[in-house]
Amino acid sequence: MSEHKGPSRRMLLGAMAAGGAAMTTGMARAAGDPAITELQPWMRSLGDGVDAHPYGMPSPFEAHVKRRNVEWLTADPVSSVNFTPIHELDGIITPNGLCFERHHSGIARVDPSLHRLMINGLVDREIVFTMDDLKRFPRYNRIHFLECAANSGMEWRGAQLNGCQFTHGMIHNVMYTGVMLRDVLAAAGVKPTGTWLLAEGADAAAMTRSIPMEKALDDCMIAFKMNGEALRPEQGYPVRLVVPGWEGNMWVKWLRRIEIGDQPWQHREETSKYTDLLPDGRARRFTYEMDAKSVITNPSPQAPLSHGKGPTVLTGIAWSGRGTIPRVDVTLDGGRNWHQARMDGPSLEKSMHRFYFDFDWDGRPLLLQSRAHDSTGYVQPTKDALRAIRGPDSIYHNNGIQTWHVDERGEAENVEVG
Amino acid sequence: MSEHKGPSRRMLLGAMAAGGAAMTTGMARAAGDPAITELQPWMRSLGDGVDAHPYGMPSPFEAHVKRRNVEWLTADPVSSVNFTPIHELDGIITPNGLCFERHHSGIARVDPSLHRLMINGLVDREIVFTMDDLKRFPRYNRIHFLECAANSGMEWRGAQLNGCQFTHGMIHNVMYTGVMLRDVLAAAGVKPTGTWLLAEGADAAAMTRSIPMEKALDDCMIAFKMNGEALRPEQGYPVRLVVPGWEGNMWVKWLRRIEIGDQPWQHREETSKYTDLLPDGRARRFTYEMDAKSVITNPSPQAPLSHGKGPTVLTGIAWSGRGTIPRVDVTLDGGRNWHQARMDGPSLEKSMHRFYFDFDWDGRPLLLQSRAHDSTGYVQPTKDALRAIRGPDSIYHNNGIQTWHVDERGEAENVEVG
Repeated sequence: MSEHKGPSRRMLLGAMAAGGAAMTTGMARAAGDPAITELQPWMRSLGDGVDAHPYGMPSPFEAHVKRRNVEWLTADPVSSVNFTPIHELDGIITPNGLCFERHHSGIARVDPSLHRLMINGLVDREIVFTMDDLKRFPRYNRIHFLECAANSGMEWRGAQLNGCQFTHGMIHNVMYTGVMLRDVLAAAGVKPTGTWLLAEGADAAAMTRSIPMEKALDDCMIAFKMNGEALRPEQGYPVRLVVPGWEGNMWVKWLRRIEIGDQPWQHREETSKYTDLLPDGRARRFTYEMDAKSVITNPSPQAPLSHGKGPTVLTGIAWSGRGTIPRVDVTLDGGRNWHQARMDGPSLEKSMHRFYFDFDWDGRPLLLQSRAHDSTGYVQPTKDALRAIRGPDSIYHNNGIQTWHVDERGEAENVEVG
Repeated sequence: MSEHKGPSRRMLLGAMAAGGAAMTTGMARAAGDPAITELQPWMRSLGDGVDAHPYGMPSPFEAHVKRRNVEWLTADPVSSVNFTPIHELDGIITPNGLCFERHHSGIARVDPSLHRLMINGLVDREIVFTMDDLKRFPRYNRIHFLECAANSGMEWRGAQLNGCQFTHGMIHNVMYTGVMLRDVLAAAGVKPTGTWLLAEGADAAAMTRSIPMEKALDDCMIAFKMNGEALRPEQGYPVRLVVPGWEGNMWVKWLRRIEIGDQPWQHREETSKYTDLLPDGRARRFTYEMDAKSVITNPSPQAPLSHGKGPTVLTGIAWSGRGTIPRVDVTLDGGRNWHQARMDGPSLEKSMHRFYFDFDWDGRPLLLQSRAHDSTGYVQPTKDALRAIRGPDSIYHNNGIQTWHVDERGEAENVEVG
């Protein structure tokens, strides 16, 4: 790899001083590199035609880029989770095939022609919608992140999983197309006493969550498309709830029923689960909003600094359930010095943001952290700051600062520095 | 379907007057609908677990949503085109598996570890980059449409193909992650005499196009990701040129070489092809920019108005190689009356835009057209206006207004009204 450094370094620094040596390196590689002196097979023969892949797939050379589950985490894969390979992605869009999955009774295989959405409870008129009915409401398109409340949960007590796919991969960010929940509720006519709603899924778990009417009438959507095409089965095909900025468990998939009531239903998913035990023995429940959070995806334990010293692109993602991310700070030395990262790509409400920090690595060990600021002024806290308030027994809503240690070889590992 | 109309109509209009009848309809359906009275199979049994699909695919119920080629169009599928199913999509993001393909010697299956990009010609120093080298330049993320110059070309002489997938489907819109071409060129040091560059692909056709230096230094990118993940093989994996707003043929895929020169190379793809014969016998060449254009994707010949009278969502896409699309007009009566459409979703430079027109269909025949306005003030012309200037022998750059006729049954067909 050493012969690659010269050109790269000069490229980035644009330093004429290094020009001579770099030119030599470049020409040396050109002369000795069979990849240049010989025509590759794909230039000597025809490839597949336009009739070969009616629905395309990634290159075989990308077969390692996939969702991964952790076998020991759950008793059974049908009530489990897998993780988005965020260390292999860039930009802010998560491709549909790589969006993490979380389901409680497996992936419901729903026939859209037989699927119905019922609105009942405290309404002027109960209504049952077909998918065709729903597609006759005005449509909207919004890019939002979906993060599981348990994302980074296994890190609550300290560094455990060696890879951001596993520590922070219960998140995805796609463009949803659907209708506004408020428009659908208006059709049924919510009674003045209707202050809460229950969303129920058509999977074998009949996933149910209580949602305050105020949020439902604000920005919630009933979505049937993601990134332009139909929702994927594992994401709720043919229709799911979108609850922007709030914990993923509320985004009920395979949405079949919305009941209007006057108080929360106190169901399993909002009592025994998605609830944290506080030091004084009380339970922290109905914790909806996902606070500002960020993580460095490259370098990270699954994505070491393989190119050695010189020009290095550090990148990561940041998000907030309360707005946008105008700023992310990055440190290379465990917090002694902070540098403002370069944000790039669309900055949208309750959507993933991409940040970069371009630096010249001197080959010495790094202690990497990122710290997100959201549009409300909130700053991502340390894990210790969270523990000081919530104690040692929490699982959910860990938005603490993540640390990676990078050694001289560029290998990274998950470490705990508070 | 008739029983579905009542509720839908009321929902959209929010008209209390229709409430009674609608409520009856809704309850009647609820009572008689087995989809409600019986638990569906997917609620009675477990689905696939999180280990079943490391890389996800669409629902089997969406198998009809695919790229399609037209067999009679070309002699061989390895030098041909297939089309994006734009009538099945919504929002502005094209999912990677459905982006139309155009290649001249099939899909090059490139091994990224053996791929190189060479910069040569009028430069201070020739350089050869590995993929690792390229990824050490600062990265940027941009959403841009890519339209083939021949999109709608078969319609030049009049209505031919019955479906917007075929008349307008040589377009896609994704988020690219890559580096700026100007940064890579700066590394090689372009000599003052370098005013043009030649981009060459690593496919068996060695696709080559000439690009003016001014554009190269403006907003061109060398991209290695689309919608977050690696470029798809048919889109140039591992690296392609991105030439925002300009004809797709210039976005050289499998990019292997950039030569700097002082004039265009006059290669096949910019002389015998991607060139139009004018009435006076001269050839219209080096036509780079894609002018403002739009098309109604629903309803359209492949997507009839199946729900009958009442609330109807008309939608379509619009784009311009010169900026954004602040406005799209829609007519239901072949141009007698125009209505301003509702734009929804991000409005980004040289990116696809989504428009909607929500109306109450009375069941009478429709003559649908859309007309895009771009941020420079340019307005999409009629096909006749284009023919008056370019004559009858053109193929490329047909951005004329498209017309669909919708009959009483909701069936749509491609018609010509100038």
